[in-house]
Amino acid sequence: MFAISLGDDGAELRPLEPWQAEEFLAHMDRGREFIGQYITLADVVTDLESSRAYLQSYADKAAAETGRIYGIWTGGRLVGGVLFRTMDVEHGVAEAGCWLEPSAAGKGLVTRAARVIIGWAIEERGLHRIEWLASTENEASIAVARRLGMRKDGVLRERYPYRGRRHDTEVWSLLAPEWRAGGRSDLRSP
Amino acid sequence: MFAISLGDDGAELRPLEPWQAEEFLAHMDRGREFIGQYITLADVVTDLESSRAYLQSYADKAAAETGRIYGIWTGGRLVGGVLFRTMDVEHGVAEAGCWLEPSAAGKGLVTRAARVIIGWAIEERGLHRIEWLASTENEASIAVARRLGMRKDGVLRERYPYRGRRHDTEVWSLLAPEWRAGGRSDLRSP
Amino acid sequence: MFAISLGDDGAELRPLEPWQAEEFLAHMDRGREFIGQYITLADVVTDLESSRAYLQSYADKAAAETGRIYGIWTGGRLVGGVLFRTMDVEHGVAEAGCWLEPSAAGKGLVTRAARVIIGWAIEERGLHRIEWLASTENEASIAVARRLGMRKDGVLRERYPYRGRRHDTEVWSLLAPEWRAGGRSDLRSP
Amino acid sequence: MFAISLGDDGAELRPLEPWQAEEFLAHMDRGREFIGQYITLADVVTDLESSRAYLQSYADKAAAETGRIYGIWTGGRLVGGVLFRTMDVEHGVAEAGCWLEPSAAGKGLVTRAARVIIGWAIEERGLHRIEWLASTENEASIAVARRLGMRKDGVLRERYPYRGRRHDTEVWSLLAPEWRAGGRSDLRSP
Amino acid sequence: MFAISLGDDGAELRPLEPWQAEEFLAHMDRGREFIGQYITLADVVTDLESSRAYLQSYADKAAAETGRIYGIWTGGRLVGGVLFRTMDVEHGVAEAGCWLEPSAAGKGLVTRAARVIIGWAIEERGLHRIEWLASTENEASIAVARRLGMRKDGVLRERYPYRGRRHDTEVWSLLAPEWRAGGRSDLRSP
Amino acid sequence: MFAISLGDDGAELRPLEPWQAEEFLAHMDRGREFIGQYITLADVVTDLESSRAYLQSYADKAAAETGRIYGIWTGGRLVGGVLFRTMDVEHGVAEAGCWLEPSAAGKGLVTRAARVIIGWAIEERGLHRIEWLASTENEASIAVARRLGMRKDGVLRERYPYRGRRHDTEVWSLLAPEWRAGGRSDLRSP
Repeated sequence: MFAISLGDDGAELRPLEPWQAEEFLAHMDRGREFIGQYITLADVVTDLESSRAYLQSYADKAAAETGRIYGIWTGGRLVGGVLFRTMDVEHGVAEAGCWLEPSAAGKGLVTRAARVIIGWAIEERGLHRIEWLASTENEASIAVARRLGMRKDGVLRERYPYRGRRHDTEVWSLLAPEWRAGGRSDLRSP
Repeated sequence: MFAISLGDDGAELRPLEPWQAEEFLAHMDRGREFIGQYITLADVVTDLESSRAYLQSYADKAAAETGRIYGIWTGGRLVGGVLFRTMDVEHGVAEAGCWLEPSAAGKGLVTRAARVIIGWAIEERGLHRIEWLASTENEASIAVARRLGMRKDGVLRERYPYRGRRHDTEVWSLLAPEWRAGGRSDLRSP
Repeated sequence: MFAISLGDDGAELRPLEPWQAEEFLAHMDRGREFIGQYITLADVVTDLESSRAYLQSYADKAAAETGRIYGIWTGGRLVGGVLFRTMDVEHGVAEAGCWLEPSAAGKGLVTRAARVIIGWAIEERGLHRIEWLASTENEASIAVARRLGMRKDGVLRERYPYRGRRHDTEVWSLLAPEWRAGGRSDLRSP
Repeated sequence: MFAISLGDDGAELRPLEPWQAEEFLAHMDRGREFIGQYITLADVVTDLESSRAYLQSYADKAAAETGRIYGIWTGGRLVGGVLFRTMDVEHGVAEAGCWLEPSAAGKGLVTRAARVIIGWAIEERGLHRIEWLASTENEASIAVARRLGMRKDGVLRERYPYRGRRHDTEVWSLLAPEWRAGGRSDLRSP
Repeated sequence: MFAISLGDDGAELRPLEPWQAEEFLAHMDRGREFIGQYITLADVVTDLESSRAYLQSYADKAAAETGRIYGIWTGGRLVGGVLFRTMDVEHGVAEAGCWLEPSAAGKGLVTRAARVIIGWAIEERGLHRIEWLASTENEASIAVARRLGMRKDGVLRERYPYRGRRHDTEVWSLLAPEWRAGGRSDLRSP
Repeated sequence: MFAISLGDDGAELRPLEPWQAEEFLAHMDRGREFIGQYITLADVVTDLESSRAYLQSYADKAAAETGRIYGIWTGGRLVGGVLFRTMDVEHGVAEAGCWLEPSAAGKGLVTRAARVIIGWAIEERGLHRIEWLASTENEASIAVARRLGMRKDGVLRERYPYRGRRHDTEVWSLLAPEWRAGGRSDLRSP
């Protein structure tokens, strides 16, 4: 029932919950190859049961305040999402991330959605540091981090085994003062 | 970050979560006497710990799909809320309820908020029967049930022990076809 | 090892526990069609595993004081039972129920058994209100409620989806003073 | 509500459950010094909370089929009990035990009660070996083992630390064929 | 990484943990017939899943301080082990045991390993009584108990159902003062 | 009972378990000020209960294969330790760390101990990447990382709130091929 407009093109950010497992799976089926290039999500969500299990894991994280997941809809179709893979309220740190099916790429949807949840995390929840991890080869994800005003903290060498090869993982971050200086907090539900 | 406008007076419906325990307690402190006339909420939420425990119990219900709670804000102040005390998606039944601090009474806030969550439950989640339980003496709550288009199913005699006396409990209900016939589904986030 | 005589015909009420799963299943196999007319029990207990799981759920309820189940034996054969599907000792409310295989119907066994457990609940455990829920079409069950001296509180419209159709559910109740006025408390183990 | 007569003197064996914690504590207060000579029960049950916790531990054992506890009442007063401290249905072994407040000693109550539960364990549950452990100094307990037809298997040296000293523990046992040969199975609820 | 030399023949005692499930299974496959003569271990560990489950059960016991398991390696091959099947630190009692594949029998490996863990239990952990249980027919195991300086406390008649027959179980024990008098505490990691 | 020599000075690495809570607390009391300069351990372990809880958390991690802790003893006194704060066997990554009371500093104890556990993790458990996190101000810890042959992956800006200030956290890492090239695997129990 809740929704936040992401702009004039009708895109919306909404909660993404276990009862939407079927819709989430259909979306993943459309985007599996594209999404699966650099992240495991496509390998994890492969049928209704695994789709429900994945969303339930985030419902449990939400209840425990250790993570959140949100979907992006355009024209009534779920096309991607943003999430806090981890949230450590006590220490003021969260790791944000995103995914998108190919039909929705290139419109800045993820950047807009990420701004909404980062704004909430920093301004309403008081978080200090938002992290963004991506394979050094995942240029699209790194471009989002850059557009969000993040800075690169370093490269975790060979940290991420994926499809038979170990990837280097870039760590980007945005600190609360940097967020505020960028005046990024103007997005809210109208 | 999510919010749904409840009308032109600026009232909003938003998620109500454990991290808002302090705000919830302050609200309960303002409305304790009024709210506590017929329902236990005022006796249950008495300090920060019990406020957090109460909201956590609903965060857990949300994760398990067995209940939900939402707050009503006017002018940036939390003044009441609506909830599904129970939700049984498998059998298509949920029990809705509400509370309000006195300063916010008489404006139809609860009725408007209840319509939003009932619409979501029936139209998005496929529930068939929304119940509403209230002490026979709680005229305000019964008036809401009536305004929601509910019908009285009966009176559970002496079912509810509260502050040293057993109250009769009225059961009201709204069925999905009745909801749809009433054209109540026009409320959504703008 | 415990047993309470239900009358001169040799019928007995006894605890019904997980280790009796095989006997319970054989009984359910004999009565499945008859029992399954209005209640889910016949659909829930279909093999040894589900029989054990059902009885274990009541063993767990007994340990937590949230429910109880008892069997009725005649001539050494398990033919039915009575139960507290829910027990809320703190609020003084319990929901009683029953089932029977067809060979044992028409002898008042369930009424006698229900009197024993209701007497225990009211007199030994201090419960105030015993509820009895039945489909409006389940005349046999409603007849028992009537014989127990219960009164009808109302009809929960379309509350119970069963075998593809939603049934109206009648709520009957018996209050402690009514029970005591009826002098029903004379049944105990001899 | 269940009860088994232990003879013409009105003594009865009944389930002993958490809701009887107050009654159990009063009994323990009367018998503490006597009961506490050789067994820890008197040191474990010292107030309402510990009384409830002790009985709850046996309610949990009952639900898991790993133990049972029963009380002995004479003239409406709880004066002692018998129990299966452990029950291993899979391997056919259980350890029985007893306790008594001094006013009820010398009447054979415990022996009679133990026969009832041992008969149930062997004949209804199929157990093969009933054990009885007692400090070598606990002559009353050893006398019960002897009266039950048990034989001494050995002495576990310094096995049981109690009140600052390590006691030798005698192990007695009764096997199913011995029980049956003794014709002990004639006791049931009348 | 930890290891204790058991003598000049290169035998070593090491922790045995869930990640070694494959090695443990291979060892059990070599010794299944021999080991399975008197103890259930050979019937319990039959594939990788059950091997991992068995070792995990001891990892959990170790974390809860209720048991321990250690392997014996000779020439880099796992050939047997010793364990505390139960450990009750509060009461100062533990039950020790052992197993061996046939190629490693007759070298005193188990006796040497048992001395190491008994020494640790008595001297570092303060245990008072180490028990050793074995079928009366398991002469090898009883010989170890004797070599460890244990004394026979008795025979638990027909206590242990194994492969269709009930075995008598001998109970042997060693008390802390007996251990110390025997001067057995000279073994440690070099 | 297990111990690994760390060199000719008698220093030893041993398991560190909940039953050693008292010894661990005494050590922490001696080193609290020194240890607490940059890491929370000194603030977490302040009495016997918290000491036991801390060690228990690592006993649980060990059982779940998600972490390990080891103590360093010199002359029979616990003076520090090394640990895997996290271990992700599936992805081949672990975060190592250390602490030391001041009397034991400057002798290379931590470096030697870390080599032992890193060797075990890489060679016996197959881990690929060992991480080391430290405040940029914690020169001693960074020196250890350097001595272990690690390389700096980056600096996580303001990641670690400690005693009222947010510290930058350096991430160092050692990959399995680097470890092997360095010939570090020659340390084992003699």
